[in-house]
Amino acid sequence: MTASPFDHPFLSGLVGDDEIAPYFSAEADLRAMAAFEAALARAEADHAVIPEEAARKIAEACAGFSPDLASLRAATARDGVVVPDLVKQLRAAVGEEAAKSLHLGATSQDVIDTSLMIRLKAIAFLFAGRLSAIVSRLDALDRRFGGNRLMGHTRMQAAIPITVADRLAAWRAPLTIYRDRLTEQNFPVQFGGAAGTLDRLGSRAAAIRASLAQELGLTDIAQWQSARLVIADISGLFASISGSLGKIGQDIALLAQAGDEIEMAGGGTSSAMAHKQNPVAAEVLVSLARFNATALSGIHQSLVHEQERSGAAWTLEWLLLPQMTMGSAASLRLARELTGNIKRLGTG
Amino acid sequence: MTASPFDHPFLSGLVGDDEIAPYFSAEADLRAMAAFEAALARAEADHAVIPEEAARKIAEACAGFSPDLASLRAATARDGVVVPDLVKQLRAAVGEEAAKSLHLGATSQDVIDTSLMIRLKAIAFLFAGRLSAIVSRLDALDRRFGGNRLMGHTRMQAAIPITVADRLAAWRAPLTIYRDRLTEQNFPVQFGGAAGTLDRLGSRAAAIRASLAQELGLTDIAQWQSARLVIADISGLFASISGSLGKIGQDIALLAQAGDEIEMAGGGTSSAMAHKQNPVAAEVLVSLARFNATALSGIHQSLVHEQERSGAAWTLEWLLLPQMTMGSAASLRLARELTGNIKRLGTG
Amino acid sequence: MTASPFDHPFLSGLVGDDEIAPYFSAEADLRAMAAFEAALARAEADHAVIPEEAARKIAEACAGFSPDLASLRAATARDGVVVPDLVKQLRAAVGEEAAKSLHLGATSQDVIDTSLMIRLKAIAFLFAGRLSAIVSRLDALDRRFGGNRLMGHTRMQAAIPITVADRLAAWRAPLTIYRDRLTEQNFPVQFGGAAGTLDRLGSRAAAIRASLAQELGLTDIAQWQSARLVIADISGLFASISGSLGKIGQDIALLAQAGDEIEMAGGGTSSAMAHKQNPVAAEVLVSLARFNATALSGIHQSLVHEQERSGAAWTLEWLLLPQMTMGSAASLRLARELTGNIKRLGTG
Amino acid sequence: MTASPFDHPFLSGLVGDDEIAPYFSAEADLRAMAAFEAALARAEADHAVIPEEAARKIAEACAGFSPDLASLRAATARDGVVVPDLVKQLRAAVGEEAAKSLHLGATSQDVIDTSLMIRLKAIAFLFAGRLSAIVSRLDALDRRFGGNRLMGHTRMQAAIPITVADRLAAWRAPLTIYRDRLTEQNFPVQFGGAAGTLDRLGSRAAAIRASLAQELGLTDIAQWQSARLVIADISGLFASISGSLGKIGQDIALLAQAGDEIEMAGGGTSSAMAHKQNPVAAEVLVSLARFNATALSGIHQSLVHEQERSGAAWTLEWLLLPQMTMGSAASLRLARELTGNIKRLGTG
Repeated sequence: MTASPFDHPFLSGLVGDDEIAPYFSAEADLRAMAAFEAALARAEADHAVIPEEAARKIAEACAGFSPDLASLRAATARDGVVVPDLVKQLRAAVGEEAAKSLHLGATSQDVIDTSLMIRLKAIAFLFAGRLSAIVSRLDALDRRFGGNRLMGHTRMQAAIPITVADRLAAWRAPLTIYRDRLTEQNFPVQFGGAAGTLDRLGSRAAAIRASLAQELGLTDIAQWQSARLVIADISGLFASISGSLGKIGQDIALLAQAGDEIEMAGGGTSSAMAHKQNPVAAEVLVSLARFNATALSGIHQSLVHEQERSGAAWTLEWLLLPQMTMGSAASLRLARELTGNIKRLGTG
Repeated sequence: MTASPFDHPFLSGLVGDDEIAPYFSAEADLRAMAAFEAALARAEADHAVIPEEAARKIAEACAGFSPDLASLRAATARDGVVVPDLVKQLRAAVGEEAAKSLHLGATSQDVIDTSLMIRLKAIAFLFAGRLSAIVSRLDALDRRFGGNRLMGHTRMQAAIPITVADRLAAWRAPLTIYRDRLTEQNFPVQFGGAAGTLDRLGSRAAAIRASLAQELGLTDIAQWQSARLVIADISGLFASISGSLGKIGQDIALLAQAGDEIEMAGGGTSSAMAHKQNPVAAEVLVSLARFNATALSGIHQSLVHEQERSGAAWTLEWLLLPQMTMGSAASLRLARELTGNIKRLGTG
Repeated sequence: MTASPFDHPFLSGLVGDDEIAPYFSAEADLRAMAAFEAALARAEADHAVIPEEAARKIAEACAGFSPDLASLRAATARDGVVVPDLVKQLRAAVGEEAAKSLHLGATSQDVIDTSLMIRLKAIAFLFAGRLSAIVSRLDALDRRFGGNRLMGHTRMQAAIPITVADRLAAWRAPLTIYRDRLTEQNFPVQFGGAAGTLDRLGSRAAAIRASLAQELGLTDIAQWQSARLVIADISGLFASISGSLGKIGQDIALLAQAGDEIEMAGGGTSSAMAHKQNPVAAEVLVSLARFNATALSGIHQSLVHEQERSGAAWTLEWLLLPQMTMGSAASLRLARELTGNIKRLGTG
Repeated sequence: MTASPFDHPFLSGLVGDDEIAPYFSAEADLRAMAAFEAALARAEADHAVIPEEAARKIAEACAGFSPDLASLRAATARDGVVVPDLVKQLRAAVGEEAAKSLHLGATSQDVIDTSLMIRLKAIAFLFAGRLSAIVSRLDALDRRFGGNRLMGHTRMQAAIPITVADRLAAWRAPLTIYRDRLTEQNFPVQFGGAAGTLDRLGSRAAAIRASLAQELGLTDIAQWQSARLVIADISGLFASISGSLGKIGQDIALLAQAGDEIEMAGGGTSSAMAHKQNPVAAEVLVSLARFNATALSGIHQSLVHEQERSGAAWTLEWLLLPQMTMGSAASLRLARELTGNIKRLGTG
């Protein structure tokens, strides 16, 4: 049941990521959704829209919530989203009195988009750390081998000699930019209600949204149910990261083929040829770059998001963005490993 | 650990497929790989390349094989492919004498590509059946409502009245073509050895490949390790199927929005609005069409498959084709369900 | 005014094609549209729907027609299609009596799609010839150098020696398949009228369409105004051609980089380094392959063609398919040139 | 010779742009390239690398330069880039003495990339103005109709009533962000020399690059010959713009189909149905959004830019970015026109 190599029992060894994958487990998603409901109740109680007691009960139920997954799956098949059934289960858990205070004024998209933002924010922090680690390794290579000679290649032909430092500079430049962007990227709360107007909360709507955002550590912006720029931005950043790492992978694969300007540890074995040392990680960086470049197109297709909320465009995002994140995660993991496995670069 | 909705505990209710998904389980893949090794041994014994006794032992070992998944995962991380470790495990299972007869003359790509073809062939057969079921439902709708009036729309505007039969004819036409193509599609064996030359089998190479293909129920063609047209063809067919079903979905969603020319059973509920009946399946057909259209681009990128065998281009296929297959599977499942849920079409 | 390099004053030297480009001139398009109107009048006269005299006058007017391009441009801006104004101009040219017999029962899409099919059919014939020429050159290389040794490379690493004949076989295999497909590809007439029902032609509709197809040398099939499989098929074939040629280009660029296994004539010069011989054609084959792979995704997006005729999906095709055709044309031109420039392959 | 509708004699009426297209003429490109050479000579004279007199002669020759286009085309076919022949022609124009001071230390990519940045910078300014105009029109609609009722639609179903102001807010939000981004976007000079190291300019290299950037009104950053993030960023921004405008187009097309909540001026005529008013501009906004979404994928593929400079990846950019720019230009033009043609929105 693992059409995606990112989730696959053995292929995930190659393209999976044990640190990032858990953020896309059903459990993590449901936990973040429950956190949304609890934070919303908290915010609505603070603004006197629901009773304090209800918020307390909701927080408690959300914290200890153990969902009926089979029911969620069947309901998602029917409703297109997990939230109606999830809310029903949560309402049963909080008891009759507080039930009507749960999910008040919210809609499915608020819950799902916000859960995604909560998790992507954490992931972005980890990605920034990985970029720092890769940059450190490039710096270390620069200190050791920066003065070495490397044949510069343009248009697939030997051009003029450069130094290893020159090549490393080209590799490093975009990575430091990405690190800054990840750090500065806004991860906004989504809160708009049925049709984006927070119609059930009246004049307190904006204040509640601000409290909700603060509660969840997210940025407070107006609902973006049909204006999916934030999704395109994050996807573009992730695709750029794996794209630039793919360039490093391609360069290393070409160095490995020529053979005399690089020395690597690691490298894969072959079922047919015992003598080979394949630059597996370098190649897979190229694959992941092309995968994310491909997927980004679909994310941009989903900018054509009709009316107040589109099921078609939204579902398309689900099919793409989590895997793009995994693609970037694996790229970062492999690039860190690969740059750490370089034993020599250039010729002295 | 389920970045892909196709494999996801609850999202698979919406976009998964319980009949097709098992073909992409690690178990099914490993079973088909073991079947390749057993069939290869059988063919090589028939052509007197390995002892009969070895082929028997290999067949036995492959039939009862229970792989060490943790080892396979670690090895895939290192080797980029599962096969070297799988072969090692199988060799341990068959015993020292027969071990050297296992995987003789083959390479990782032979095993993995052939496993994929075995499974895609079975899936194509199921897809053809599903298309027949959808066509039957369209025929039934035609019999019941074909004479009804439907407002023809061009360029998003009411044009002139047509009949329901006219619309159904446009929906049906490509589906019958796809059914024929699925039936006629060749699913070839892959057998080329280390660099595509079957160098270790000498003059018996072609005959062994023919026997191997026959054994596995696949078409016998020359190795296609670097000429990936068959992958592009199958992917194009799958994307076309989901594309044409996406058109049906889009049409039904537009009918459902207008409201007076269609009556549907089913339809999803909303967490915010109890009165709504969302055309969930119709929308998701559009999402899946766009997902497969997106992914097809990556498959075609992987036609630029360098030299004898490219790790980068090949891994990219793995990231896309299984999920494209799932996308088509879910499209077919949803289209069958959706066309069965139409209670009225057009106005009498 | 040449955003596209295919049409560009100097970039077309690189990626243009003097033989194929004229098929995408406004003149060729308008000529084929006029041919449609003349053939339709002919067919309608044969089936006694319009007077013989009208058909004669229409044929005459269409043959000598000289359109007012400025008017067509302004009208296309307004109508989204050129046909309403073109028909108006043609009607003025044929004179009042015959005017009402012109374009009878047809719609814009009939004219535009059929014009495209007329031209693509001619192009497919030329493409098949180019493939034959490339295959001949590969055969010639095989005769001269087939027995030479080439280092087989897998996963970007030297693997085991193969022969030049082995590499050439992998290059050639898909090309012969494409040649057959181009020859067998159906190029159908489009004739459906306002909403696909040929409502104005009653019981004679199918017979008129058959005559029209025959007149134009196209295949007679039911209208496909909203079922765009034929567009996806042709686009997929064109993308496969440039994809497989891109693989050849990539291989040659890698050979040229290593340097000792290939000797080339031609090759580009550098503004900075006088000593370089760049494998320009080889690189551009890769670019064109990736361009067409990219564009194919958009063609498949346009399979989600809503209702009877979609302006949005149809216009998207126009933005992609002509340039994909040019991409394949340039690929074929460059691959012919490149394979002709190989002076030595492999080592003796 | 106009495979691209953006450059087409009559289709450009629909998807062309008379204000932006000239920036992609060969003339404009050559003019900007000549400006690069003149500015470089100026900068190199200022830093005492070439004689003052040479810089003066180069500036003069560049200002009055009239290239031999046929020669440029033939040379581009051979060299893959126009620059070697352009430099040769310019050197002939400046005369023997100054000739060796022209293009000193530069390479083709420096000239071509910088020419693109000069023109994109001007275009971005125009785009920002267009966005302002669209925002103004949305503001005007808001003032007139903001209080009107509009049926909110989610998942293609009537949901709950919203106001026209709500819908307009969702349309406007991303547009103001794009305007800011266009204004803040850096358009950097490219100056790296043969292999990115400015090897021929020694210790004065960075100072010369800074002067060059200042001379041309561009940002001074280290060479980005193989680190193509700036291209991905600009392309992503352009695709986002057309994507968000595509959402507006889709919404208007859906409103036009339903009919009672919008009143439009303009709209196209039909060759088959005189009564129709087609929402042509709205539909084409969707086409252009999907075109740019498609093309963006190819731009990200070209991030995998091997070694110091890749002909394959770079040429791919040329096939995509100018047309993406035109796609955004046409989107902005059509959206301005369309929003100006709305006579009524919502119901009072």
